[in-house]
Amino acid sequence: MNDAASRHMSPEEFRRWGHAVVDWIADYQRRVAELPVLSQVKPGEIRAALPASPPARGEPFDAILADVDRLILPGITHWQSPNFFAYFPANTSGPSILGELLSAGLGVQGMLWATSPACTELETHVLDWLAEMLDLPAKFKSSGTGGGVIQDTASSAVLAALIAARERATGGATNQLGCNGKLTAYTSSQAHSSVEKAAGIAGVGRSQLRLVDVDETFAMNPEALRSAIARDRAAGLTPFLVCATVGTTSSNAMDPLGPIGQICRESGLWLHVDAAMAGSAAVCPEFRWIHAGLELADSYAFNPHKWLFTNFDCDCFWVADRAALIRAFSILPEYLRNQATQSGAVIDYRDWHVQLGRRFRALKLWFVIRYYGVAGLRHHVREHVRLAQAFADWVRADPDFEVVVPPPLNLVCFRHRAGDDFNRAMLECLNASGRLYLTHTRLGDRYTLRLCVGQTHTAPGHVAAAWDLIRATARQAANGG
Amino acid sequence: MNDAASRHMSPEEFRRWGHAVVDWIADYQRRVAELPVLSQVKPGEIRAALPASPPARGEPFDAILADVDRLILPGITHWQSPNFFAYFPANTSGPSILGELLSAGLGVQGMLWATSPACTELETHVLDWLAEMLDLPAKFKSSGTGGGVIQDTASSAVLAALIAARERATGGATNQLGCNGKLTAYTSSQAHSSVEKAAGIAGVGRSQLRLVDVDETFAMNPEALRSAIARDRAAGLTPFLVCATVGTTSSNAMDPLGPIGQICRESGLWLHVDAAMAGSAAVCPEFRWIHAGLELADSYAFNPHKWLFTNFDCDCFWVADRAALIRAFSILPEYLRNQATQSGAVIDYRDWHVQLGRRFRALKLWFVIRYYGVAGLRHHVREHVRLAQAFADWVRADPDFEVVVPPPLNLVCFRHRAGDDFNRAMLECLNASGRLYLTHTRLGDRYTLRLCVGQTHTAPGHVAAAWDLIRATARQAANGG
Repeated sequence: MNDAASRHMSPEEFRRWGHAVVDWIADYQRRVAELPVLSQVKPGEIRAALPASPPARGEPFDAILADVDRLILPGITHWQSPNFFAYFPANTSGPSILGELLSAGLGVQGMLWATSPACTELETHVLDWLAEMLDLPAKFKSSGTGGGVIQDTASSAVLAALIAARERATGGATNQLGCNGKLTAYTSSQAHSSVEKAAGIAGVGRSQLRLVDVDETFAMNPEALRSAIARDRAAGLTPFLVCATVGTTSSNAMDPLGPIGQICRESGLWLHVDAAMAGSAAVCPEFRWIHAGLELADSYAFNPHKWLFTNFDCDCFWVADRAALIRAFSILPEYLRNQATQSGAVIDYRDWHVQLGRRFRALKLWFVIRYYGVAGLRHHVREHVRLAQAFADWVRADPDFEVVVPPPLNLVCFRHRAGDDFNRAMLECLNASGRLYLTHTRLGDRYTLRLCVGQTHTAPGHVAAAWDLIRATARQAANGG
Repeated sequence: MNDAASRHMSPEEFRRWGHAVVDWIADYQRRVAELPVLSQVKPGEIRAALPASPPARGEPFDAILADVDRLILPGITHWQSPNFFAYFPANTSGPSILGELLSAGLGVQGMLWATSPACTELETHVLDWLAEMLDLPAKFKSSGTGGGVIQDTASSAVLAALIAARERATGGATNQLGCNGKLTAYTSSQAHSSVEKAAGIAGVGRSQLRLVDVDETFAMNPEALRSAIARDRAAGLTPFLVCATVGTTSSNAMDPLGPIGQICRESGLWLHVDAAMAGSAAVCPEFRWIHAGLELADSYAFNPHKWLFTNFDCDCFWVADRAALIRAFSILPEYLRNQATQSGAVIDYRDWHVQLGRRFRALKLWFVIRYYGVAGLRHHVREHVRLAQAFADWVRADPDFEVVVPPPLNLVCFRHRAGDDFNRAMLECLNASGRLYLTHTRLGDRYTLRLCVGQTHTAPGHVAAAWDLIRATARQAANGG
């Protein structure tokens, strides 16, 4: 129990404990590769070690920090381990963490331009930088009719796109009067679950989202899309949105944006493109083929918090027509009125998403881009792709394994030829070892392992060790475990 | 240009620059009271100082940090100044900032229990602690049918409540089939704009939200609510949700939860209670009257990121029936399946909100509660209320000014008796001085100034200086400026 029960942490105390937390993180960065990647605790184990009631009196900061090691760390799955190959990555970097720290220290709200002009203007500016870095169509830049905004996640971005598209399709009527059960949207059967979730949330209806068939690469079949739209129109429904994916979650499949975009143009549908992880690859000119046809899209999102060294949350979302987005979200109560807003000369980002309040997330993105430079970011993304392709080559060269679908970038879908049960058991055994973390999916109705290279510090040795462990585990399992 | 163009920040470099950023924040905390509270830059001024294109090569970290002072700081409105009395506060504290830093350093995803068990379990646990600290009804605790979750903002919380209520009212049909234009919701004419925004987003329709009349304290009139519901039922519509406010944004008005809750019970409507700022007051037993009747609510939210020393974002949202919430948001694609989820023994918070990904926000809340203890938090909240009440007394004692509505807690609505134009000019003059920041609203159709005491370091001297400046500015304006 300390004297601080009724006192705040002074700037000098903050300096002292801040250094201690920075040191803790630096030490964590040194040792994270040695920790078991997947937490091995059982349900309820973490809670059982916590006091049932909150402390009546304040406690010293060093006691709290010590409890992070004692109580929290065993329950952490180490997303920042170089041996993390599961899901999609959520990579971070030193400059990003420090940008987040500075944002927390400033503690500003960016809901309106006026509530901190730098928060808004740096965001608009950095998203224009990113549009240039990814060579996105010029219409997404703020200098034209479009512009970018930071959303928390790709789920929120697809919801925002859906709302804007819904309003465009109904002349703003839906926002006022509610949905009428007639709107229909389209995405591939391989798209992320967030599209279906958004259709439910927005009152469009999950069953009004058509899951369009895919080809052998698990990419959307444009002819199947065309037929689905025609069928719905004939039935008196109102097709309004297509969500295409650049890099599906299961297998990194690339929907063909050109043909899909043409259909959207012809039919007047809004095209949203979700490139949550794979979009980062476009910092490298040789990977920009993934965006072929993007000039036909109405909105686009990718997550620097996945594969561009910027800690979560940071989804970058662009629209070609910002007026359509703002019309869908804007409300101006008296207590938010101010001269800058009324002048029309500024962006108020509260009108670009669900939330009103927002923190200064552009800082960390600015720190990352400046610290690495475009060349640095290219170097690291390129290296991740190279490592994943090397892994795929090793898999192909082993007669016991197969690559399930050619890996376009940094995600390899593979399996042992011994069948679903064997692969499932092998995955459990691998993850229980703590030496790496992989997850699975189903492709062509077969249980498939996924290895995604994207954690900041994943180097050739980590990928090689993963492959060695996978083969050793398979051999052991084949010999009866 | 540094060697880091293709290199990551090493742990030792992170240690060095981390200490530098911590020092920057400690120094900022020392000087923030002296900085002009409201940024005085013009639209476009910040962007004009930034390079048009991103840097090709990486830059040294100290150059980036120097640019924070040079390019960013002039565009900051200082929400952490003790002279910030605008809007609602977004207060922070040392332990909270360090909790956020640690969360960024760990960089884990809490979308599923399995992706970092501690992230989920600490959140559930700390929200149970908070339910105890605010003396919330037992049904909101995770030990029963309910439970709490951290949302980003109160806007997202009201959207989540609305979606869950919509599904309960339609037996899950809306999520699947979409809205049908028949659902109606209710809130007071003084409620936050986020309720109307949520009704639009969810496809219920903004015009399907009835803005119920208020009494002379600007609190919802329960009889007007009852009539509105009856009218809609008679018209064949489906009333499904009431959103009551504990502490409206304009004037901190308190909707009478008991009578409103009774009506909801009788009519089978979901009652959501938004206590975004004022909820924090309930850490003090003497202010718990604001929650009288809360046992009749289905969901409740308040924001520790407003008035409980926890940096944005951190909205705490509880439901009495977590199954209803989960049914509304759940989707389980193959790539997220895992043993823990299938066992049913764990919480997967991705099913409690719009987003899939989520960061480890419980850490900062845990740090704050432990560092201050319940007694410390009570002390500071109590002191803010005392300061606001003292300010109200000074206003009442001055014949040129009036208190517009009795201030229940820490927000004082007041005005000069010389009329709207005078008050508007006075506010502009005050904010242009940089010595404080106030915002306005309209109450009873009259321009009204708001002074909200809630920034962490606001002390008696800051409130006294604010009153001196307000009176001096008024005298000067009365004498023709």
